[in-house]
Amino acid sequence: MRLVVLTFFLSLLSVNALTAAPLSDDTENCLVCHLSVTPGIVAGWKKSLHAKVTPVESLQKEKQKRRISADKVSSGLSKNAVGCAECHTMNPERHQDSFGHNGFQVHVVVTPSDCASCHPTERAQYEQNIMSLAYVNLNDNPLYRSLINSVNGLQTFDEMGLLYRIPDEATNFESCFYCHGTKVKVEEMRTRETSLGEMDFPLLSGWPNQGVGRLNPDGSRGCCTSCHSRHEFSIEMARKPYTCGECHKGPDVPAYKVYQVSKHGNIFSSLGGSWNFNEVPWTVGQDFTAPTCATCHVSLIVTDDGETVAERTHQMNDRLSWRIVGLIYAHPHPKSPNTSIIKNKAGLPLPTELTGEAVANYLIDEEEQAERRANMQKVCLTCHSYEWVEGHFASFENTIKSTNAMTLTATNILSEAWEKGVARGLPQGANIFDEAIEKKWVEGWLFFANSTRFASAMAGADYGVFANGRWYMSKNLQEMSDWLEFKLKGK
Amino acid sequence: MRLVVLTFFLSLLSVNALTAAPLSDDTENCLVCHLSVTPGIVAGWKKSLHAKVTPVESLQKEKQKRRISADKVSSGLSKNAVGCAECHTMNPERHQDSFGHNGFQVHVVVTPSDCASCHPTERAQYEQNIMSLAYVNLNDNPLYRSLINSVNGLQTFDEMGLLYRIPDEATNFESCFYCHGTKVKVEEMRTRETSLGEMDFPLLSGWPNQGVGRLNPDGSRGCCTSCHSRHEFSIEMARKPYTCGECHKGPDVPAYKVYQVSKHGNIFSSLGGSWNFNEVPWTVGQDFTAPTCATCHVSLIVTDDGETVAERTHQMNDRLSWRIVGLIYAHPHPKSPNTSIIKNKAGLPLPTELTGEAVANYLIDEEEQAERRANMQKVCLTCHSYEWVEGHFASFENTIKSTNAMTLTATNILSEAWEKGVARGLPQGANIFDEAIEKKWVEGWLFFANSTRFASAMAGADYGVFANGRWYMSKNLQEMSDWLEFKLKGK
Amino acid sequence: MRLVVLTFFLSLLSVNALTAAPLSDDTENCLVCHLSVTPGIVAGWKKSLHAKVTPVESLQKEKQKRRISADKVSSGLSKNAVGCAECHTMNPERHQDSFGHNGFQVHVVVTPSDCASCHPTERAQYEQNIMSLAYVNLNDNPLYRSLINSVNGLQTFDEMGLLYRIPDEATNFESCFYCHGTKVKVEEMRTRETSLGEMDFPLLSGWPNQGVGRLNPDGSRGCCTSCHSRHEFSIEMARKPYTCGECHKGPDVPAYKVYQVSKHGNIFSSLGGSWNFNEVPWTVGQDFTAPTCATCHVSLIVTDDGETVAERTHQMNDRLSWRIVGLIYAHPHPKSPNTSIIKNKAGLPLPTELTGEAVANYLIDEEEQAERRANMQKVCLTCHSYEWVEGHFASFENTIKSTNAMTLTATNILSEAWEKGVARGLPQGANIFDEAIEKKWVEGWLFFANSTRFASAMAGADYGVFANGRWYMSKNLQEMSDWLEFKLKGK
Repeated sequence: MRLVVLTFFLSLLSVNALTAAPLSDDTENCLVCHLSVTPGIVAGWKKSLHAKVTPVESLQKEKQKRRISADKVSSGLSKNAVGCAECHTMNPERHQDSFGHNGFQVHVVVTPSDCASCHPTERAQYEQNIMSLAYVNLNDNPLYRSLINSVNGLQTFDEMGLLYRIPDEATNFESCFYCHGTKVKVEEMRTRETSLGEMDFPLLSGWPNQGVGRLNPDGSRGCCTSCHSRHEFSIEMARKPYTCGECHKGPDVPAYKVYQVSKHGNIFSSLGGSWNFNEVPWTVGQDFTAPTCATCHVSLIVTDDGETVAERTHQMNDRLSWRIVGLIYAHPHPKSPNTSIIKNKAGLPLPTELTGEAVANYLIDEEEQAERRANMQKVCLTCHSYEWVEGHFASFENTIKSTNAMTLTATNILSEAWEKGVARGLPQGANIFDEAIEKKWVEGWLFFANSTRFASAMAGADYGVFANGRWYMSKNLQEMSDWLEFKLKGK
Repeated sequence: MRLVVLTFFLSLLSVNALTAAPLSDDTENCLVCHLSVTPGIVAGWKKSLHAKVTPVESLQKEKQKRRISADKVSSGLSKNAVGCAECHTMNPERHQDSFGHNGFQVHVVVTPSDCASCHPTERAQYEQNIMSLAYVNLNDNPLYRSLINSVNGLQTFDEMGLLYRIPDEATNFESCFYCHGTKVKVEEMRTRETSLGEMDFPLLSGWPNQGVGRLNPDGSRGCCTSCHSRHEFSIEMARKPYTCGECHKGPDVPAYKVYQVSKHGNIFSSLGGSWNFNEVPWTVGQDFTAPTCATCHVSLIVTDDGETVAERTHQMNDRLSWRIVGLIYAHPHPKSPNTSIIKNKAGLPLPTELTGEAVANYLIDEEEQAERRANMQKVCLTCHSYEWVEGHFASFENTIKSTNAMTLTATNILSEAWEKGVARGLPQGANIFDEAIEKKWVEGWLFFANSTRFASAMAGADYGVFANGRWYMSKNLQEMSDWLEFKLKGK
Repeated sequence: MRLVVLTFFLSLLSVNALTAAPLSDDTENCLVCHLSVTPGIVAGWKKSLHAKVTPVESLQKEKQKRRISADKVSSGLSKNAVGCAECHTMNPERHQDSFGHNGFQVHVVVTPSDCASCHPTERAQYEQNIMSLAYVNLNDNPLYRSLINSVNGLQTFDEMGLLYRIPDEATNFESCFYCHGTKVKVEEMRTRETSLGEMDFPLLSGWPNQGVGRLNPDGSRGCCTSCHSRHEFSIEMARKPYTCGECHKGPDVPAYKVYQVSKHGNIFSSLGGSWNFNEVPWTVGQDFTAPTCATCHVSLIVTDDGETVAERTHQMNDRLSWRIVGLIYAHPHPKSPNTSIIKNKAGLPLPTELTGEAVANYLIDEEEQAERRANMQKVCLTCHSYEWVEGHFASFENTIKSTNAMTLTATNILSEAWEKGVARGLPQGANIFDEAIEKKWVEGWLFFANSTRFASAMAGADYGVFANGRWYMSKNLQEMSDWLEFKLKGK
């Protein structure tokens, strides 16, 4: 311990040398041990703006250049670097996971409510983002629970055929809820030996997790570090497509893969090395010459004469008129980020009927769609002519129609199978996702129609034809039809 | 408007400060509005050599270092930066899409014929490139039209089973023709409100598109910006594999994916950040230590004592002896870039019989194959011994044989299905690509045999075994055989 | 020839200017011709540390900073740059491929035994690495030979159905053995014309190859250039994930793909451009802020106060307690790198029974597993809390259990098919990998269960759900079951 303290004072000199901002006494206290206990975290944090600029310095910048949205920051926070103690001892009264640790009340899970001390607008916007309800929308939708069960459930085989068991929580947390977010709870306090003696720590369930809709021990939803990775919290990283690609690369949400084969993605990959990813606001043409995900969906974008092209938003779908992903048919975006409240005429928790018609009262109307489309197009128009942009969007809307039509055909085949009793689905009150033919149907919309739409939306055609799009959408129907024929003959 | 003009004069100062080359009066006129109307385009262009060097300065360089191939450039072009007006008002008499715009005759679609004012050799070579006929070769080949229909056509399901409809043009343009190129036509002139008042613009069909074989409104074929992305026209970008990957990443042409797992691709990804992608000519070892796509297929490559290893070519297949992609069997390259003229003995528009024999009179002979192979090997030999290179090519040619043999086996299974009437194909005069078993057959050659050959050609073995190669080629045959057995039993 | 010599003296000046280290006379002699014969190789080598630092200079560094592990280097090697002659004339007596070349005894294939002159510890560790036996473990395992035959063998189709032929060696070498390594042998000496007159060269079979378990003409095993690519031998490259991705990207070993969607991979991709990949030892936090493959599995890692977090190892699996890849069930790592000696109770050369039980006497015990896990966790703990790390590993071990259970279910379906005689496998003494249903079974464990485990181990969840994991694992079982039903009905 003595050695550690000695090391600390030497190391702290170098920390202070590196961090332009002064450290609070509490944070200095944390660093006494954590410089050697978790050196990687400390090193990462030292590179962050949190270590270099105090909130009060931030507030002195003109508004467009600020990275914090609070008009003022509590005096306890404002004059020091944002260090260990500032975040990990914030709001202890709300934190079920707060525990005594060397004389401090600290918590492990820093949450959007904690970050909102300096970044309240981002938190407020994010709460309107459907992503903040990613846990709830999946977990509280009985139909989607049955999809989870049919993906994660262990199957056994005996004379009765294949049987599914309900998946254990660890599997669900590692699978769907890894990206959607888990429910993090304190199970108990536990004493264990550490390099600095015996200590008590909370044992959390649903942990580790950094999913976008995480339910936190302070009751808040979401996880800022999903995108603003700890402990550098680098805006460069959040603006690069690799961050979005952590969750949006699989065939169900292939945004990253489509971006990679798009002209935009090519320009980023080829020339992005010389761009400025750290400037706020972000100037089109000057800081970058092609959009990343953040350009179109999140960042505050300006022209080099300072005109605002797009406001910063953490709602992220507020420039999207269509929801093209994750549901059976593409449809206008839901009004509320909480989609678990939606019910169609047939009583299913879906934003469309099983035959594709939108459940209008839960979804944004055409006027709102037009406004969102116009907001998105403002970004496009900084580099493209009106006719180009119009042609692109007309093509995209045609693709929404054609992919929905192909999904309807797949649904018709499946309905026939259910009706003829060669598969067990809605008419039988059975899980509609668990049999082979049903899984083909799911791939039809969750992978292939989705991917085709993404390829269209983001102009990454290569992905939408043979990579994972129209080719498979078409082949899938033929194979579903063959399967039905085999089954009916064998009946 | 006044404000815009004022902004312009201020901005123009900075443009001129940034562009070493003087601007023509016409281009200055364009910039008055477009600096604020399309700031991203202007910013991109300011970073281009077009904005920095005049053609006459280019011509003063020694020939090997020049980026333009014209011996002289018309006086109207030579002394100014290559700006908006230089390209977008070029050859108005040829451009169906030329229209009056603030006192100028401008066109939207700049074409290879326009670029040829300074780059005539590249245009001439590209016209010999099969890519320049990518639209024609697909659109004018009735067999390939039926493949398009079976991929893009909407399917419906009723008691009669699945039926295909002819796909609409918007779908085809977004799918196959996105990379192959569309036919761009002026449909009508249209008046619309702009931020600068009411204006007239041509409404183009087949637009936007940047496909390699685009048919342009001036009658030319191709699109230089497929690879030389507007408006930076960066040679760095054209030389990086991401550019080729826009169209050559899917399982039908997996060049980029194979490159990624090759030693060459690894060296590029790991060390390419320190290479010089802008130098002309491009010196092996000095500017780069492993090839990108451009190194082997396009660029002028020299050694550091100035000896030419490979001439610049925009024909691109002139160092390729085998065509390994896109057709049922690998075969010697076609003589003419126009493959829609080819017919085999059976009368099909294919460069081989359905049983694999090459249709020799349309294809290059062994002598030409040997010459192309030798030209390619000159590049290899700058880093590899003769024995290494010879071993590599022997292995590749063995793979051409074995993959063709596997495709023949797949064709034999399919032919049996046609003959026995459990599928409808050539004997029935039906589409040979639309049924499930036929789609398996297509995947056999279009995806798996192709991918295996690419993996062999570019030494990216990982892709050719389990990723998308021999494993699937072999499994596909077993599944085709099982399907045939099921069908024959059910008959 | 005279011109070449003249060019040489001019070029050599520049070589010596660039290489801080003096060249041996022999290497100067090589360069006379090879500067112009293989300019790319020479240019690559000039950028290497081999060209810049002599072994004796290396030995003067403090031990932790050294890149060579020999305590002393033979006097013939120590005072010059490590050039052409140093490696390619080393140990001629052992090299079956040594041949007379302009007065020198040179060999083409530089081997781990040659490299061990300066790097003996790395060679010794690598010999304990299962990778060094990648050729042997595949080639000498009869069950795995039958897998190779069922992947690479040409199939023919006639009235008897599909038949496999034994694959030719060129195909095997280009496929499985490309990564596993080939057996490189001198077939004969051959005389050929070169630009410098007639010369003799050995004709090697199994060449070119850079596979990790290559059998070399000097009797050694392995290939240092698999990862330390010639002729830069850049540690930066070996530490970047692209190198591992050459062989570990396909669905059978998807480490690279999982890394890409992990938080670690995202941080590397987004921020790695500013990291220091060349420093030895490698300091966590300071040189890098997220691990690459090398960080966890190979490199000497220290904290910024010089404490060792992980020793350098070229055994690579010595921090891995479970072998999760390439076999039917995940199991504790084998004790010996030679797995061709393993036999289960049923007499099959497998580390588990076909029903999943580990063959304990060939595998490390729980104590060794615990020690390896603890060594790995030391790396994790530099950035993560104990509870985080514990939660991660608990989740991973749960996934090992659940994926093994899913594989057992697949095996049960297959066994039923064998028993009922609708497929031919173990009971029939037939190849167990060659039929469609068997290939589905193989995909179940080789692709989907494997990928799910990798996604869990490396926290790249996206890959383990819909990209190539649980979704397919579950769907595969349903399709196997359907197939069995069709077959039994058709019987």
